Amino acid sequence: MTINKKILLAKRPKGLPDKDTFKFVETEIIKPEKGEVLIRTLYVSVDPYMRGRMIDAPSYVPPYQLDDVLGGGALGEIVESKSDQFEQGDIVLGSFGWQSYYTAKQDEVRKVDKDIAPISTYLGILGMTGLTAYFGLLDIGKPKEGETVVISGAAGAVGSVVGQIAKIKGARVVGIAGTDEKNQYLKEELHFDEAINYKTSTNLQEDIAKACPNGVDVYFDNVGGEISDAVHTNLNKYARISVCGAISSYNLKEEDIGPRIQTTLIKKSVLMQGFTVGDFANRLAEGSEALAKWLQDGKLKYEETIIDGFDNIPDAFLDLFEGNNIGKLLVKVDK
Amino acid sequence: MTINKKILLAKRPKGLPDKDTFKFVETEIIKPEKGEVLIRTLYVSVDPYMRGRMIDAPSYVPPYQLDDVLGGGALGEIVESKSDQFEQGDIVLGSFGWQSYYTAKQDEVRKVDKDIAPISTYLGILGMTGLTAYFGLLDIGKPKEGETVVISGAAGAVGSVVGQIAKIKGARVVGIAGTDEKNQYLKEELHFDEAINYKTSTNLQEDIAKACPNGVDVYFDNVGGEISDAVHTNLNKYARISVCGAISSYNLKEEDIGPRIQTTLIKKSVLMQGFTVGDFANRLAEGSEALAKWLQDGKLKYEETIIDGFDNIPDAFLDLFEGNNIGKLLVKVDK
Repeated sequence: MTINKKILLAKRPKGLPDKDTFKFVETEIIKPEKGEVLIRTLYVSVDPYMRGRMIDAPSYVPPYQLDDVLGGGALGEIVESKSDQFEQGDIVLGSFGWQSYYTAKQDEVRKVDKDIAPISTYLGILGMTGLTAYFGLLDIGKPKEGETVVISGAAGAVGSVVGQIAKIKGARVVGIAGTDEKNQYLKEELHFDEAINYKTSTNLQEDIAKACPNGVDVYFDNVGGEISDAVHTNLNKYARISVCGAISSYNLKEEDIGPRIQTTLIKKSVLMQGFTVGDFANRLAEGSEALAKWLQDGKLKYEETIIDGFDNIPDAFLDLFEGNNIGKLLVKVDK
Repeated sequence: MTINKKILLAKRPKGLPDKDTFKFVETEIIKPEKGEVLIRTLYVSVDPYMRGRMIDAPSYVPPYQLDDVLGGGALGEIVESKSDQFEQGDIVLGSFGWQSYYTAKQDEVRKVDKDIAPISTYLGILGMTGLTAYFGLLDIGKPKEGETVVISGAAGAVGSVVGQIAKIKGARVVGIAGTDEKNQYLKEELHFDEAINYKTSTNLQEDIAKACPNGVDVYFDNVGGEISDAVHTNLNKYARISVCGAISSYNLKEEDIGPRIQTTLIKKSVLMQGFTVGDFANRLAEGSEALAKWLQDGKLKYEETIIDGFDNIPDAFLDLFEGNNIGKLLVKVDK
């Protein structure tokens, strides 16, 4: 009998999630019925937004329920098909999350093309990560050639793609990240024009000003908090802020307090817009095609950090908040 | 010899401006030369944004210099013309501000049409005030029929126009103001659907929720601060915030601190945009025509508070921060 390993939400975290947040259980797999497929999980994605779903508050995705499997992007191989749309061996993408097997209705998953790029990229640069970067930068940030784009969380899964797309569009690109190793990667591998280490900076506002002698036209914000406060003081007239994430606040136990933004927005006629990739649901094909083309043309690079072993998923997730990884963080599920 | 009375910036205020902020001086008038006109001031406008120009920091308009005349919207009558574009008796609009006479180059002022409406309206509903409401609401807020529009500073010069335009566009309109008298005016005279007194509310967030059973789609923000914090918690998915003013912060001696907005913007995919009417400089004719038409059709009402006497200009300006006035606040300059 094949056993399905699952990781459930055991307890809603206050502050940083810990071992008590998660519960490992084993259940029997459910045999697929007509129109269904049985999937063996190959990779699962761990993403900062999942922290938001662990609290019981309305958001753009519904909160996790207690004792629910922690859902999220995952890739698997079809081991048994009762659907005429899939064959055994097909690789499929879905939101089945942190479990080693999943019995899906055929319309819950979609087949991915193994020939374009390694399949793991469908959880990263060719998946929601890349699409988030694509739409957030191009539809909200709208960088023009020669403008300056600043990205926080720049070495992360989304930020590293944003910077490269901004370079493709002819912008000057400045990344903010938390280690010299990340910044070296941004400059040497991804050709960012400048990179700032916010952890070693003694005056971030000034360091941003130095790295952006013509001011900041577009700010792609993954982090919020004091880093963003410092960027906001350097905005140009008619700047655009694409608000993608606020990882600095996700594990706060108290309210996220800081300078109110209104006066800055008025003085500089700034646009600030929050978004999630779901806002562009009817244009995902456009984004996917552009990303795949750039990837195939060698214009986009990506880095993946792949952790081995199903049991390590919670630790991999917690690593996101340590800021240790470069690029996309994935867990490869053992056979 | 005719004497020109002027009010200068004597000292940059910290906190609320007071008598020491202003200095009254008298100079001789300057005789107009070829291409110039001599204007006797009839009305001057006092506006919250002028507080921002009293501090020495870059903004969308340059700061006032010490011992400069406090510039701003003003209407006057031409008493002597050396320009072939103007005749004695013409009424002109300019930015000559707090002085009883002004010698203008002919391209610094424009003639207004006395037949459309009382001339004072060119400093209010037919002037920058009305245009600010028009563009801020329609270009940023973009209210759709049946949507809910919330306005802070709703009984002020801009807010009262915003609400009426939102009604013309078929929205449900909820105003926030600081006295029952103002709210009575908003509901009875301007046909706002609801009006909330933030000073007597014991739970503003809840009162807004009650007044907006379908949530808030558009927030036109004149005030910032805690009132706006309370509105932000009631925003709908895809809400738009038109950030026009932050009067709650203009006289703060310390930094304006409150809940950071990023998480709200992300969760609801909210757009927040600061603006000034100058951003729409190439479309002012469109706005002026629409406002004049609505005014002539009886679809727009306006209230003016007119203070008499040049010497009362600073007090009238300070009244703006007391929140005592309804509609546009002007000073009629004595002959």
